[in-house]
Amino acid sequence: MQRTYGRDRVEFGRVLAFSDGLFAIAMTLLIVAVGVPDIADGDDISDLADALNDLKPELISFFISFAVIGRYWLAHHQFFSLLEKADQGLIGLNLVYLAFVAFLPFPTALLGDYFENPLSITIYATNVATVSGLEVVLFRHAYRRGLFRRPLTPDVYRYGTLMSLSPVLIFLSSIPVAFASTTAAALMWLLGIPLGILGQRWKPGGADGQLYGVGD
Amino acid sequence: MQRTYGRDRVEFGRVLAFSDGLFAIAMTLLIVAVGVPDIADGDDISDLADALNDLKPELISFFISFAVIGRYWLAHHQFFSLLEKADQGLIGLNLVYLAFVAFLPFPTALLGDYFENPLSITIYATNVATVSGLEVVLFRHAYRRGLFRRPLTPDVYRYGTLMSLSPVLIFLSSIPVAFASTTAAALMWLLGIPLGILGQRWKPGGADGQLYGVGD
Amino acid sequence: MQRTYGRDRVEFGRVLAFSDGLFAIAMTLLIVAVGVPDIADGDDISDLADALNDLKPELISFFISFAVIGRYWLAHHQFFSLLEKADQGLIGLNLVYLAFVAFLPFPTALLGDYFENPLSITIYATNVATVSGLEVVLFRHAYRRGLFRRPLTPDVYRYGTLMSLSPVLIFLSSIPVAFASTTAAALMWLLGIPLGILGQRWKPGGADGQLYGVGD
Amino acid sequence: MQRTYGRDRVEFGRVLAFSDGLFAIAMTLLIVAVGVPDIADGDDISDLADALNDLKPELISFFISFAVIGRYWLAHHQFFSLLEKADQGLIGLNLVYLAFVAFLPFPTALLGDYFENPLSITIYATNVATVSGLEVVLFRHAYRRGLFRRPLTPDVYRYGTLMSLSPVLIFLSSIPVAFASTTAAALMWLLGIPLGILGQRWKPGGADGQLYGVGD
Repeated sequence: MQRTYGRDRVEFGRVLAFSDGLFAIAMTLLIVAVGVPDIADGDDISDLADALNDLKPELISFFISFAVIGRYWLAHHQFFSLLEKADQGLIGLNLVYLAFVAFLPFPTALLGDYFENPLSITIYATNVATVSGLEVVLFRHAYRRGLFRRPLTPDVYRYGTLMSLSPVLIFLSSIPVAFASTTAAALMWLLGIPLGILGQRWKPGGADGQLYGVGD
Repeated sequence: MQRTYGRDRVEFGRVLAFSDGLFAIAMTLLIVAVGVPDIADGDDISDLADALNDLKPELISFFISFAVIGRYWLAHHQFFSLLEKADQGLIGLNLVYLAFVAFLPFPTALLGDYFENPLSITIYATNVATVSGLEVVLFRHAYRRGLFRRPLTPDVYRYGTLMSLSPVLIFLSSIPVAFASTTAAALMWLLGIPLGILGQRWKPGGADGQLYGVGD
Repeated sequence: MQRTYGRDRVEFGRVLAFSDGLFAIAMTLLIVAVGVPDIADGDDISDLADALNDLKPELISFFISFAVIGRYWLAHHQFFSLLEKADQGLIGLNLVYLAFVAFLPFPTALLGDYFENPLSITIYATNVATVSGLEVVLFRHAYRRGLFRRPLTPDVYRYGTLMSLSPVLIFLSSIPVAFASTTAAALMWLLGIPLGILGQRWKPGGADGQLYGVGD
Repeated sequence: MQRTYGRDRVEFGRVLAFSDGLFAIAMTLLIVAVGVPDIADGDDISDLADALNDLKPELISFFISFAVIGRYWLAHHQFFSLLEKADQGLIGLNLVYLAFVAFLPFPTALLGDYFENPLSITIYATNVATVSGLEVVLFRHAYRRGLFRRPLTPDVYRYGTLMSLSPVLIFLSSIPVAFASTTAAALMWLLGIPLGILGQRWKPGGADGQLYGVGD
């Protein structure tokens, strides 16, 4: 029997505090990759404008990655709000998941510097797909060990799994596209937004009650 | 119906812990931009004094931005102290708001390197005005969804909106001034301090009771 | 008599929040050491692939150190879950322990840049052995001052000490090996994993009850 | 009347969480300043040993500053454990105090690069003296506004003020010494340790009861 910590325990709170800290740092470190440009005449407006224009891919990468990690934080927040308790296995898997969240500033910086290179897109998309894949692993672990506050029906369980798997599919399928056009691949990532909204509507009956607890 | 989290819930606390972490990191990262100068003779006092003198704009930028982000943290702290609960919409808007807080170290570094360039002032002022603008959006969202602990009268609501909008006005109107003198533009930012103090005095009747809950 | 703080006190929580923050930052900062490569033709796939291939030791070092610090966080989490209270001595020792955790990004970056150099392995292994050694110091301090929630029998105390000492032995004994082969030394570090699992099985009778509190 | 937050309020907790985050980040960022050396032959042991030897001042600076900031965290932890509540003034002063804590990585890096230069010592010592000075300001503010959990007698209040002022004196008086010998100045800083221990013994009668609450 693995040790478990109820949600009112200091130990459950530490897992969240540690995760929140790591998310917040990973999101803030993204800006460190955007170096201030070096220009010859610091007072010249058009020189600085040109230099900043060259930074455009870095700045876009910052906001894309902030949105991506922010979305993972939201999903993490929602997932843990459904849990009654955490076991050692979940805490360990959460660390593996966070390793790939903490890694994201690297592919982000790569994307900022080499946006036109399909390899940057490949590495970025693989990183994001891995994080989403580990989200599925966390969800399945919690389901099998009965860590949820309310038992889930198989329908709702399948729905939750699919919702986490859809970003895996979107990001992995953007990789071959990147070799034709990196811009098209990046635009595919935006697909996740309407898909997520549609997904919210296609919930199986009773998903709200089971996942969120009506009147909770 | 959107899901909401009461202020005594772990989930409400996570939003605050995550925000506090991000604020703290953004404020501490500001110092990373201030690079240690490279001098030929490390033991020479006047060489190092000259080099540090050249760093003056970077050091001033650090303290300006620390004060600016610190003021936002105070406003965030006060705003959330008025809330009874948070909904998913507020949590999402809070992430957008934090993206622009996390971005501030970049314009700060720009300002440190190119203080005399009106473009630096423009980018810095636009970033700050955006954060204040998003503060208004958060305030209005909480008002419309009834997230406050005490219902606000329209007078008090208008007052709160104006208080958040005044930095937007000050920072945006400093932009044209910057093209004449960047120092004058930066001095305009200091206007926010007496204005904030005056604003505290021009509160509509009952604002204290409604916003802060006398005897709370 | 030293001042103590019970686990339900705000002050006990601050020690954990501070420690969690420091762990999370040390783990996330590891990625900063992995600089984005500088290549001549940014759009060339094989150029970027070659440059990334050269980064392999840095990337491996990131994941090794994330796992190492993550494992310390888990041990810290487990250790503090056993405590009834903290005294000033424990809080001070915890700071010394955290100093060497915060230091780890430096040997990690060294290892990433000079993986083939036995000196990098020596410094890395010494740092890790120091952290594990300080873990023993924390454990003994808590035992002697009676800070545990349940009194430990000498058997269980010896077992806990040995479990923290085993990484000290593994990492220190990898140092002479590094002078023959740095890869062999790094592989020795992986030994810690099966040893840790074996250790969980060799628990003295009653260790579970005393260390973790059956039905807790 | 200023708004106050009791120690059981979410808002009191946020001030601590934010402060803890900032302390943890400032302490961890110190290591970023210690750059990995660049050597010609990466596999050569004596080349790397020489390069690391040159880093000695940086490494010493890391540990000095970690100890200095760690000691401030301990004092902050102890100070807030004495408070019954926080008011807006204290929260604002705490931010000013934290600005100078967040600034410390800069003089630390300066000290690491130019340890022999009296100007580095001057800037470092001034920064530390400022933080200690602001500690006094926080203490006096809490005393005057009656924020302590137990009323302090004037004796105990004077004692607390002196304990925070002693580092101010030590660090400021090290500045002229630095112009004769920077090593002597740095050694003076170590004076703080025995003085702090002596100070603990010279407590006025009743200080324990008033400051820490016997049996608390």
